Amino acid sequence: MSLDHVRIVLVRPVYGGNIGSVCRAMLNMGIRDLAIAEPRADTDWSEARKMAYRADAVLEQRREFATLAEAVADCGLVAGTTARAGLYRQHARTPRDWAPTLLEAAQHTRVALVFGPEDHGLNNADIALCTQLIQIPSSEEYASLNLSHAVIVCCYELFLAGRVPIPPQESSPEAPSELRERMFAMWRESLLAIGFMDEDTAAHMMLGLRRILSRGSLTEIDVRILMGIARQTRWTAEQMKRDS
Amino acid sequence: MSLDHVRIVLVRPVYGGNIGSVCRAMLNMGIRDLAIAEPRADTDWSEARKMAYRADAVLEQRREFATLAEAVADCGLVAGTTARAGLYRQHARTPRDWAPTLLEAAQHTRVALVFGPEDHGLNNADIALCTQLIQIPSSEEYASLNLSHAVIVCCYELFLAGRVPIPPQESSPEAPSELRERMFAMWRESLLAIGFMDEDTAAHMMLGLRRILSRGSLTEIDVRILMGIARQTRWTAEQMKRDS
Repeated sequence: MSLDHVRIVLVRPVYGGNIGSVCRAMLNMGIRDLAIAEPRADTDWSEARKMAYRADAVLEQRREFATLAEAVADCGLVAGTTARAGLYRQHARTPRDWAPTLLEAAQHTRVALVFGPEDHGLNNADIALCTQLIQIPSSEEYASLNLSHAVIVCCYELFLAGRVPIPPQESSPEAPSELRERMFAMWRESLLAIGFMDEDTAAHMMLGLRRILSRGSLTEIDVRILMGIARQTRWTAEQMKRDS
Repeated sequence: MSLDHVRIVLVRPVYGGNIGSVCRAMLNMGIRDLAIAEPRADTDWSEARKMAYRADAVLEQRREFATLAEAVADCGLVAGTTARAGLYRQHARTPRDWAPTLLEAAQHTRVALVFGPEDHGLNNADIALCTQLIQIPSSEEYASLNLSHAVIVCCYELFLAGRVPIPPQESSPEAPSELRERMFAMWRESLLAIGFMDEDTAAHMMLGLRRILSRGSLTEIDVRILMGIARQTRWTAEQMKRDS
């Protein structure tokens, strides 16, 4: 699933540093199309370049528009972000809820994610241009996210939605039961040999060890390491016995 | 589900502004416990205060530690973030995958989320202290997130995970980092003593053992058992040496 048709639109952003941070957040999530609506004349572009760190291409290729309407004119979906729940904002849904819809739409039309200025967010005229509303879940105590934080959360959700789910990546395969059992048998021998347990307590102790080593996965490489330890421990104990 | 026991640990952070942004990201997601390990003498705290915007209480209440080990000493789970996939980093999982585990653990023990410095991330010694590894999904073209962006993505996932109920797991409390580290130190000694590894291969082998024992949870009872084995193994090896 491609994110090529996703556009990030910043409306009247105040701080150049935030614009730069947004560029980096976008590129981290594979999104490159940045538009700025109603840019401010006093924007600190040198701060923007500094924060864009290695994403300066996104910053340089940005487009500026006099109005939000122009910035989203060619977009089929326009999703506005809001921290406030109010009139016209009741149907806001989370970025995770919207992500599949937005991503699907982005395969055949342009999709804009619109973020308001740092101080007051999108106003009602901005909101009126939006076809969807996004509200990022956050603490009731302090709901308002930094601008670039709001952008990365939304882009991250789109990026994840577009990824084919990948199973947890151990390179070594899970050890088969037979191999694991051989390993436990070797540990049993070695723990008896060093006197950590005797035949009476062995069953109980071995259950403890099994529990510890069965919490997560156990790969073949892991089992080989554990066998090596058991083998060497037993050898040490046998040397001791022979010597004494 | 409470996030009160979640700690954000920044290791050797370079930019004060990032520290401030992290405070805001934390408070947005209802997390307040900030630790800084190996703080730099030249940190720009005025920039930190500026970016903490309305989250200055989190900044002021931060604690500073000379080492990462001290910053996470009382933590049952220590989740390190890494942008790189490499040896011992293969079993990194996404924040979304880890969130339920971390949140569940945070109901009965402290859980640390550890973030490396902006320039190079966590080093291998830092990683060794981690029981879990988190890798934030991002574009292959530019994988490395801004520090506060990485923090908000992880905190956001925890915050969201906290909104759905999760079934309870182990009854014995997760072993704190300090106890686990003592256990690993004992294993190191005993594996050297039996000749399973030498000083040259010890670091590599111990990372392997850490990986095996960090797949799932590790309770205090588990750690006591593992310490007992290490102690007895070493004793055996010392007897052998004395006898021969």
